[in-house]
Amino acid sequence: MTGQTNKNGIRTDVGYKRIATEEAFITRELLDIYVKMLKEGSHDDPGFGSLWGFYATNLQAERPRIINERLQDIGERRIADMDAAGIDVAILSLTSPGVQILPRDLAIAQARLANDQLADAVRKYPDRFAGLVAVAPQAPEEAAKELERGIKELGFKGVIINSHTQGEYLSDQKFWPILEAAEACDAPIYLHPNTLPKGMVEPFIECGLDGAIFGFGVETSFHMLRIITSGALDRFPNLKFVLGHLGEALQYWMWRIDYMHEATVRSKRYESLKPLKKKPSDYLKENVWITTSGQQFEPAIKYAQEVLGKDRVMYAMDYPYQYVPQEVADLDNMDMSPEDLKAFYQTNAEKLFKL
Amino acid sequence: MTGQTNKNGIRTDVGYKRIATEEAFITRELLDIYVKMLKEGSHDDPGFGSLWGFYATNLQAERPRIINERLQDIGERRIADMDAAGIDVAILSLTSPGVQILPRDLAIAQARLANDQLADAVRKYPDRFAGLVAVAPQAPEEAAKELERGIKELGFKGVIINSHTQGEYLSDQKFWPILEAAEACDAPIYLHPNTLPKGMVEPFIECGLDGAIFGFGVETSFHMLRIITSGALDRFPNLKFVLGHLGEALQYWMWRIDYMHEATVRSKRYESLKPLKKKPSDYLKENVWITTSGQQFEPAIKYAQEVLGKDRVMYAMDYPYQYVPQEVADLDNMDMSPEDLKAFYQTNAEKLFKL
Repeated sequence: MTGQTNKNGIRTDVGYKRIATEEAFITRELLDIYVKMLKEGSHDDPGFGSLWGFYATNLQAERPRIINERLQDIGERRIADMDAAGIDVAILSLTSPGVQILPRDLAIAQARLANDQLADAVRKYPDRFAGLVAVAPQAPEEAAKELERGIKELGFKGVIINSHTQGEYLSDQKFWPILEAAEACDAPIYLHPNTLPKGMVEPFIECGLDGAIFGFGVETSFHMLRIITSGALDRFPNLKFVLGHLGEALQYWMWRIDYMHEATVRSKRYESLKPLKKKPSDYLKENVWITTSGQQFEPAIKYAQEVLGKDRVMYAMDYPYQYVPQEVADLDNMDMSPEDLKAFYQTNAEKLFKL
Repeated sequence: MTGQTNKNGIRTDVGYKRIATEEAFITRELLDIYVKMLKEGSHDDPGFGSLWGFYATNLQAERPRIINERLQDIGERRIADMDAAGIDVAILSLTSPGVQILPRDLAIAQARLANDQLADAVRKYPDRFAGLVAVAPQAPEEAAKELERGIKELGFKGVIINSHTQGEYLSDQKFWPILEAAEACDAPIYLHPNTLPKGMVEPFIECGLDGAIFGFGVETSFHMLRIITSGALDRFPNLKFVLGHLGEALQYWMWRIDYMHEATVRSKRYESLKPLKKKPSDYLKENVWITTSGQQFEPAIKYAQEVLGKDRVMYAMDYPYQYVPQEVADLDNMDMSPEDLKAFYQTNAEKLFKL
C-alpha cells in the first residue's frame, strides 16, 4: 500500500471517512462524584470500586492517568488524537457506568448536564463529533423524556446504556418506557459494558478478570440475551441495539443459544423463559448492529460479517481505553474490497445513526 | 451427495471414522445420590439444584426423562443410538458435575466406582467406547492417584473435570497435584461445563439462562482463563486441555484478552494478575484443543480452524444432551476437503487421545 500517510503511517487518501462509534468521555462533575463515592465508600458496587478505584484515583500509574485525562477532553486534545489516528468522526458517549451508579435524582441531573456539555462540543465541532444521549434508567419515565430531548432538541444520534443499573437489566418491564421512547425516536441503543453487579462480580475481581479482559463481555452478553429472551423485541420489534467488542461473542454462541432456547422453552423448565416470535439469532441478525471496539481482529470481523451481514459490522476505536493508531492502519489493510471497507468504516454507521 | 446411508440419511461410506469426544454417562449410584441430595436440600449449590432438579426429578417431561434414561446406559441402547447417528466411537465421561458436588470421601469412592463401571463397558465394547477418568478434585492427592490408575491401569484416554469444585478452580495451587499428574501421564484434561457456583449463578437462574444456553459457557471460559492467567501453563507447559462448545468462545475473545492482559499486567492493577511467559492466546493455541459439542455451526467451526489450526478442532456430539443425527449429516456436508473432514472427525482425536 502506498499513498499519502500521516505521521503515524495512517493513510489519508483511502476514499472513506473513518467513523469511530464507541468513544468515551466523562464530565468533570461526574468524575468528581465518582472520586467522592470511592473515598466515602458509598457506592455498594464492588465492580465500580475495582474499575474506578483504578481509573479515578490511581493517577501515579501511566494507564489510568492518561485515560483519566483523555476522557475529560471533548475539544482540541481529542481532535488532535483523532487526527493522529486518522479518525474523521467520533460518536461520543458518557463512559461506563455513566450516571447509572448514582442515586436517582442526582443521576437525572448529571445525565442532563452531561448531555448539555456534549451538545456544546458537537455544536463546536459538527464535522468531527456526534453524540449519544445519556439517561438515568433509575427513573424510567424521566429517562424516556431525556432521550427524546437528546434526540429531538440536542440532535443526538442514539442512546448509551452502560449495561446494568444497580443490578437491574432492561429486560425488566419497569425499564420499557425507555425502550418505547427509543423505538419511537428510531434511536439506536448502544448497550455498552459495565462491570458485573454485586453478587456476581466478586469472583471475577479476586482473579483480576472483572474488567475489559473478560467480565465486561459476560455482563453485556448476559444483558443482551436477557433483553432478547424477555420478549422485549417482540414488544418493540423496530428497536435497534448496538453491541461493541464484535457483539460480545453472542454471534459465536448463537447456534447453541437457538438450540438450547428451543429445547428449554419446549420443556417448560423456567417460568421466565417463554416462547418468542423468532429464534434468538433472528433478533441478533435483525435488531442488533455490532462494532469492533477492542477487537481489531480480522478473522473475527470477517466471521461476524459472514453470520450477520456486512451491513451490520462497524468500526469503533474505544478511545481512550484503546487508543492505538496502528490498529487503524491494520484495519485499512484487511483483505476486503474498497466497497466493503467503506461500509465498515463509514456508510453502515451513517445509515444506522443517520449522520 | 450420494452413497450408502443408514435409516437417518447418515452416510456410511465416508472414508473416516466418526469419533465423538464429549459424550456423557452417569452411574445409577451417583444419580441416586443426586436425587437424595435434591430431596434433602443438602447440596448448597443453586446451580446444581436448577440443573439436576430438572434432569433427575422432573421425569414427567420428555427432555429430562429421555436424557435421564440415556445417561444411564453404557451398553446396547447407546450403541444403537450411535449406529443410528453414524458414530463409530464415543469417548465417554461422567456427566457434570460428576462427583465434584459430593463430600470428599464419598466423592473419592464414587469416582472410583464410576471409573470401574466405565472400564467394564470399554472392555466390553473396545471398538466403540473409550473413557476419560473421573476424579474428586476435593482431594487433590487422591485425585492424582486415581488419574494415574485410570490412565495406566484402566486404559483411559484423558481426564474429565466438570469445571468448578464447590466454587474452587484449578487455577488454585491446591489443585496442582492433579495438573502435575495429568502432565506426567500426558493425559488431556477435558474441562467440561458446570453451572456457575453459588454467589454467581443466582441472577442467571432468575432469568433461565444458567444452563447450556448461556451460563455453562460463562463458567467454563472463566475457568480456562483463570487457569491460563494463574501461570499454571508456565508451570506445566506440556499440559493439554480440551474445551467443548467450540472453545467456549475464548477464541472469539482472544485478541481482546491479549490486549487487556498486557495492559492490565503492565499497570500492576491486580496482585493476582502476574506476567506470563506467553500471551494468553498462545496458550489457547498451544495447550488447548476444542470440540464442536453443542455448536454444529459451520461458520464458527471454520473460524475456530482458522485461528487455532485444523489440527485443533474435533467433533463431539454431546450425547445425550444433544442427540440429533441430522447434525452429523450436516457436518458431513461441510465445505471442507476429505482430508480436513477426516482430521476433524477422526485423526485429530486419535492423535490427542492416543486411540
